Amino acid sequence: MSDHDLPPARRDLARRYEAVRHHTLSLAEPLSIEDQSAQSMPDASPAKWHQAHTSWFFEALLLRPHLPGYQPLDDSYHYLFNSYYEGLGPRHPRPQRGLLTRPSLDQVRAYRQHVDLHIRQLIARCDDAQWAVIAPTLELGLHHEQQHQELLLTDALHLLSCHPWRPALLDSPPAPAPAGTSAWLRHEGGLVEIGHDAAAEGAGFAFDNEGPRHRVWLEPFEIASRLVTCGEFQRFIDDGGYREPRWWLSDGWATVQAQDWRAPLYWVDASDGDAAAGASGATSRWAVFGLHGLRPLDPAAPVMQLSFYEAAAYAEWAGARLPSEQEWEAASSLSGIAQLHDQAWQWTRSAYHPYPGFQPLEGAASEYNGKFMVGQLVLRGGSVATPPGHTRPTYRNFFPPAARWQFTGLRLARDARPRAETHA
Amino acid sequence: MSDHDLPPARRDLARRYEAVRHHTLSLAEPLSIEDQSAQSMPDASPAKWHQAHTSWFFEALLLRPHLPGYQPLDDSYHYLFNSYYEGLGPRHPRPQRGLLTRPSLDQVRAYRQHVDLHIRQLIARCDDAQWAVIAPTLELGLHHEQQHQELLLTDALHLLSCHPWRPALLDSPPAPAPAGTSAWLRHEGGLVEIGHDAAAEGAGFAFDNEGPRHRVWLEPFEIASRLVTCGEFQRFIDDGGYREPRWWLSDGWATVQAQDWRAPLYWVDASDGDAAAGASGATSRWAVFGLHGLRPLDPAAPVMQLSFYEAAAYAEWAGARLPSEQEWEAASSLSGIAQLHDQAWQWTRSAYHPYPGFQPLEGAASEYNGKFMVGQLVLRGGSVATPPGHTRPTYRNFFPPAARWQFTGLRLARDARPRAETHA
Amino acid sequence: MSDHDLPPARRDLARRYEAVRHHTLSLAEPLSIEDQSAQSMPDASPAKWHQAHTSWFFEALLLRPHLPGYQPLDDSYHYLFNSYYEGLGPRHPRPQRGLLTRPSLDQVRAYRQHVDLHIRQLIARCDDAQWAVIAPTLELGLHHEQQHQELLLTDALHLLSCHPWRPALLDSPPAPAPAGTSAWLRHEGGLVEIGHDAAAEGAGFAFDNEGPRHRVWLEPFEIASRLVTCGEFQRFIDDGGYREPRWWLSDGWATVQAQDWRAPLYWVDASDGDAAAGASGATSRWAVFGLHGLRPLDPAAPVMQLSFYEAAAYAEWAGARLPSEQEWEAASSLSGIAQLHDQAWQWTRSAYHPYPGFQPLEGAASEYNGKFMVGQLVLRGGSVATPPGHTRPTYRNFFPPAARWQFTGLRLARDARPRAETHA
Amino acid sequence: MSDHDLPPARRDLARRYEAVRHHTLSLAEPLSIEDQSAQSMPDASPAKWHQAHTSWFFEALLLRPHLPGYQPLDDSYHYLFNSYYEGLGPRHPRPQRGLLTRPSLDQVRAYRQHVDLHIRQLIARCDDAQWAVIAPTLELGLHHEQQHQELLLTDALHLLSCHPWRPALLDSPPAPAPAGTSAWLRHEGGLVEIGHDAAAEGAGFAFDNEGPRHRVWLEPFEIASRLVTCGEFQRFIDDGGYREPRWWLSDGWATVQAQDWRAPLYWVDASDGDAAAGASGATSRWAVFGLHGLRPLDPAAPVMQLSFYEAAAYAEWAGARLPSEQEWEAASSLSGIAQLHDQAWQWTRSAYHPYPGFQPLEGAASEYNGKFMVGQLVLRGGSVATPPGHTRPTYRNFFPPAARWQFTGLRLARDARPRAETHA
Repeated sequence: MSDHDLPPARRDLARRYEAVRHHTLSLAEPLSIEDQSAQSMPDASPAKWHQAHTSWFFEALLLRPHLPGYQPLDDSYHYLFNSYYEGLGPRHPRPQRGLLTRPSLDQVRAYRQHVDLHIRQLIARCDDAQWAVIAPTLELGLHHEQQHQELLLTDALHLLSCHPWRPALLDSPPAPAPAGTSAWLRHEGGLVEIGHDAAAEGAGFAFDNEGPRHRVWLEPFEIASRLVTCGEFQRFIDDGGYREPRWWLSDGWATVQAQDWRAPLYWVDASDGDAAAGASGATSRWAVFGLHGLRPLDPAAPVMQLSFYEAAAYAEWAGARLPSEQEWEAASSLSGIAQLHDQAWQWTRSAYHPYPGFQPLEGAASEYNGKFMVGQLVLRGGSVATPPGHTRPTYRNFFPPAARWQFTGLRLARDARPRAETHA
Repeated sequence: MSDHDLPPARRDLARRYEAVRHHTLSLAEPLSIEDQSAQSMPDASPAKWHQAHTSWFFEALLLRPHLPGYQPLDDSYHYLFNSYYEGLGPRHPRPQRGLLTRPSLDQVRAYRQHVDLHIRQLIARCDDAQWAVIAPTLELGLHHEQQHQELLLTDALHLLSCHPWRPALLDSPPAPAPAGTSAWLRHEGGLVEIGHDAAAEGAGFAFDNEGPRHRVWLEPFEIASRLVTCGEFQRFIDDGGYREPRWWLSDGWATVQAQDWRAPLYWVDASDGDAAAGASGATSRWAVFGLHGLRPLDPAAPVMQLSFYEAAAYAEWAGARLPSEQEWEAASSLSGIAQLHDQAWQWTRSAYHPYPGFQPLEGAASEYNGKFMVGQLVLRGGSVATPPGHTRPTYRNFFPPAARWQFTGLRLARDARPRAETHA
Repeated sequence: MSDHDLPPARRDLARRYEAVRHHTLSLAEPLSIEDQSAQSMPDASPAKWHQAHTSWFFEALLLRPHLPGYQPLDDSYHYLFNSYYEGLGPRHPRPQRGLLTRPSLDQVRAYRQHVDLHIRQLIARCDDAQWAVIAPTLELGLHHEQQHQELLLTDALHLLSCHPWRPALLDSPPAPAPAGTSAWLRHEGGLVEIGHDAAAEGAGFAFDNEGPRHRVWLEPFEIASRLVTCGEFQRFIDDGGYREPRWWLSDGWATVQAQDWRAPLYWVDASDGDAAAGASGATSRWAVFGLHGLRPLDPAAPVMQLSFYEAAAYAEWAGARLPSEQEWEAASSLSGIAQLHDQAWQWTRSAYHPYPGFQPLEGAASEYNGKFMVGQLVLRGGSVATPPGHTRPTYRNFFPPAARWQFTGLRLARDARPRAETHA
Repeated sequence: MSDHDLPPARRDLARRYEAVRHHTLSLAEPLSIEDQSAQSMPDASPAKWHQAHTSWFFEALLLRPHLPGYQPLDDSYHYLFNSYYEGLGPRHPRPQRGLLTRPSLDQVRAYRQHVDLHIRQLIARCDDAQWAVIAPTLELGLHHEQQHQELLLTDALHLLSCHPWRPALLDSPPAPAPAGTSAWLRHEGGLVEIGHDAAAEGAGFAFDNEGPRHRVWLEPFEIASRLVTCGEFQRFIDDGGYREPRWWLSDGWATVQAQDWRAPLYWVDASDGDAAAGASGATSRWAVFGLHGLRPLDPAAPVMQLSFYEAAAYAEWAGARLPSEQEWEAASSLSGIAQLHDQAWQWTRSAYHPYPGFQPLEGAASEYNGKFMVGQLVLRGGSVATPPGHTRPTYRNFFPPAARWQFTGLRLARDARPRAETHA
């Protein structure tokens, strides 16, 4: 079925649907069948599961309620591939996703095709009234799948990091990330507007947690023009950063000691006699594991795979602090700011809480974001693993403070004196 | 030694020192030697330990650095009674405070007297320059001891709650807490000032985390004139509140299931065949354990000993939400607001983070508050267990969201439409 | 290379080598690539790992030390596929075997062929002196691989039991196991000889833990002619067996309560609303999962997949006891005894300890059995999953008392009065 | 009431009752109220609890069923002080015995007097038929209390070992334990009789687990004339014994690594910078904590407070093994054997299992021993903490293989060639 006869809005969404769905497959391509089925820790999911779950999302929120006569490929998938939607019934326990050796990868691919076929039918056949209902959820499903594209990479990388071989996910070498000098960029603060304005013309998509747009008062601050680099973070380590409680929040210090942290998650210490590190050709003490395998530490590359605790400790050591999410968003339009969306998610000091007047989506999608609004910190920006076009300045990513396996880095901030005072 | 010859400022502080120190002893008085030595969980400390630690605080921060020739009563106490001050050296592990059968209670009382004697000397003998240095820390030590007075009661109550007898800490009956009708009080929002202003005339004492005073922008909101009562909370339970995931934050629901929560911590379900509950004379289903023992649920009494998760779930069920700490503080001066400081600490939806421009205290006291600023929620107000005069509108108490053994309750809030809109 | 030119002893062993190695592959055949890579719990290993480890055993104990010029296919396999041999160097942690997505199954099959090729060379080329050294270890390797054949099935079954589908490993229906009436068979006791006599003519292979042959004194006893059936065990359950502490050893009762045991591991209670159980066509309350999938409980089939604790509790309830391993071995030649080796391993009351004069094998193989001789119970017999010809009356299998995922059942025994006394 | 009018058998038991009960109090005497109330780990009980539980035993098994009109001092004690008797109803959880701050020590002492008073009445008033029923249980209660006398010391010592001060339980110095040379004593083996013969003339008391007397066949063996000393064990440590897996059973090695064991439980390594060790005046590397405090290692003293794993590893390193419990008992009458009952319990290689024909006691006492007969190892002998007269050659003590806080040591054994062979 060609999409040429569709109204432009439908055709555009249909084409993006195809592109997003295809991109997921291309990301999984370097992984073997076994790679795609294994689960390296309860927080991480198998690549096969991500491929199935993103299809389930379209099935559960669109096909089942909206496509007349829709027949699921397999009724049990509704249980197997629900992630955390209490309103959609019981689900397979998250820590046991790696035991779902069945359906096979081939069957999951067939499931994807089954869902794709019927989504195309739904787009083509629904009337305009239905389309008005369907389109926002279809759009949500695409952004949902893009989030899982990053998670697929993140989780696969964690799996490979657990293997003694430390195999490379990608054959190519990493793109160089010349850092240059970091500059302090100044923001005057005051009453600023933050968040997504759904009513604005050409507003585009945003998750419910990005709104409503609202006013906040900011004091003057300065923010770094780029992210903290591996070379800079290495100096923190060399200065005994991981052995000195004074830099750490109390929970962070307890975690450092309980988990014996000595460096970011994927840093490998050659002096530990790690065979893989030796094999990586590192001449310095540290090698760093990433999408391109284990490579000698690149001092100019942004430091990644660190927790909020480590980010906050580094900032303290550096005589600075993390920005709040409001500061980050206000600063995102400053001239000279770099590495906003393309290197690493940036820990902020802000807890992930609802904005004033926040209303979750209706129905099953109400569980998408709101129920996680405690115990997590907001990250802003985007990473090398974020699909192009997925993120934006109002985007709010979030993880618990001890999470380390994401593409997470940091950008420094500090208080600024008011201008008048400066001139005095 | 009489204090009549002291300058008024010193005399005032010296008298308050005596009063605070004496009050600690009076709180411990109903407890037996064994009661004062036991530790019911890692988060709770023995009453004996609280008595020693508050003395250690004065010794470590004042007598050792500032009283020439001071001889500690026992050098090992510096290790035994340090709580969490990394900068003051290693310390006895918190979960093993209940194993400190020695020093005996008598010896701890002697330690208190030893410290008291030398604090009096310090106050009397130091010159004015020294006094300027000492006085703020002495003041801090008194407020510190008052915090531990509440903790002593809280922890002792937890210990007694673990005993099959559920013995009463106090012989007297609880004061009646007539709730009356709860009214919604309106606040117009806008740019408001929050926090303690240390530079203001007659500012009085505040902890470092209460400042600096700063501006925040608030949207219009409404807040309840009183706390949620046991009777109201019972309706949430009767409506299946603890069995329905939709009211709960995700972490909260996981905790409800993992811990099998069915009611606030000290509610005893008579239908469980709990002997002590039966003995309490409860005619309803629930009895509630408290400072005055196990008593029939009083529908008008504020609900207490619940977690942030439970407070937030109740609010969701009630079609409301928790206030932010800024809303709470702004509302504290509204006409008609009741039960601000005298019943239960009130969970807010605000994470415990530093205010803009926050600077911790200097020296050892820098660890007092700042290093706990992640993973906790702010509580505002005060409780029946808070020493009179200890709290104030800018006061920021904080606990992790799952903590239940404190005197913690909730006050509802909700968004308000702007006035203009209302009149339209 | 044909084996026709080999001396008969070598040819015989070479042929058995081929047969055993081939049998392993045939057992794995019904499993998908994903099935063979997953690990369902720390105690269970992936089928792929079993296939690799059994090859590693030949490589590590024969090819590396004895085949001149042998080149391993991959040096890292020595680390990946060592199980527990401390003397052979460090090894991959057991609980993370399921994360070894690489090498792939294809690569493991190539590893098997690589080892097979060189074992054939070793057999063909070694001189007689070498053969005398090699042959016992080669024999040991075959019996080792047979043990892992049973474990491969056991572990695969556990994996499938964790899947909501409860898929069948084998398509065929189970062979009927008509139990008939159980009879008490009498043994007079006295001084009997137990264990493997390596010096006896035609002794055949035995593991080191089966010897030396030695005398033990037995009191008269009776032993059941067959195993306890599912129908009999169901009566224990119906009588409240899992709720009544009096039948249980203290550790067993603690485990029942902590793990909420209500039936043997693979019994599925239809009244729990288990979908798969309903689908199995069971008309009774219980369905039982096994190699042939989830099927209605067969009252005549031996009960399996139970722990020592459950076996001992059943025996207590039945007014009997478990046999000692010496009683079992002595009774194995009694006329009328059935189901010795072909249904389920039979828990004995004997701790797994060394026989008097026990000497472990030399070299790396010394770790094969001896170091496990504490904390485990001896099982005797063999099961439906034991490869034909692998077991014998002196065979000592062993597992911790809480282990449930093996093909383990029970045979009753009881004390007998001496004959004279009986006649009195 | 005088006991002069009692029949001799009653009078004798009554006097022993008084002596045993008094001895318990004298053991607790050096401990403070706080010492007697604290619980240092789930396996250890507070001294106050031991004093109450031993009274409860008399009350529950004698006074309640046999003394007409008996009124318990407090009904709740039946719940608080039951240890593990499922047949006598629910009980306070073992890990929370340290939270039983009430009843106070004074109240527990009053409970003891209440029980004593009524036991005296029971002895005085019952008729001969009743006496025949009562006397064995009264005797059992005395031996039970003696077991708890040792446990009271053991548990108190563990509590004190957890305190940074490492306070001495006893003021006096330890008695010297001159070890002398250890000799190998030979036993010819053969058919020997083992266990308590209840029917023998003048049999005396024994626990049910010591019988029935029965025959076992032993191979010839040799046994050490004395226990392994601290000096000998230090050589094992110096030789890297705790770092070398080859000496260890697999479970033992896993425990060494998981718990970071480097020496017996109460050995303190001065090179660790342990303040208390430095203060003990030790000139060697090690100091050893015991009933008399922390003292320099005495090379001639028996090594104690070690686990079965450590005992077995030492024996392996020494080219010997542990005796079986049957060997130990058979050897106990050999000429020249020393340190049988007065230094440390001696780990045997024998699992704690029922003897052939074992019958537990009737009624509640049936739970005394039998239900623990899995997962534990038998210890023979007695220790410095065993009350005089309590133990005997048939006595079977038992603990899990990882238990370290008891007064447990080891005596070596080894296989012997048959005499004829030796002479050949």
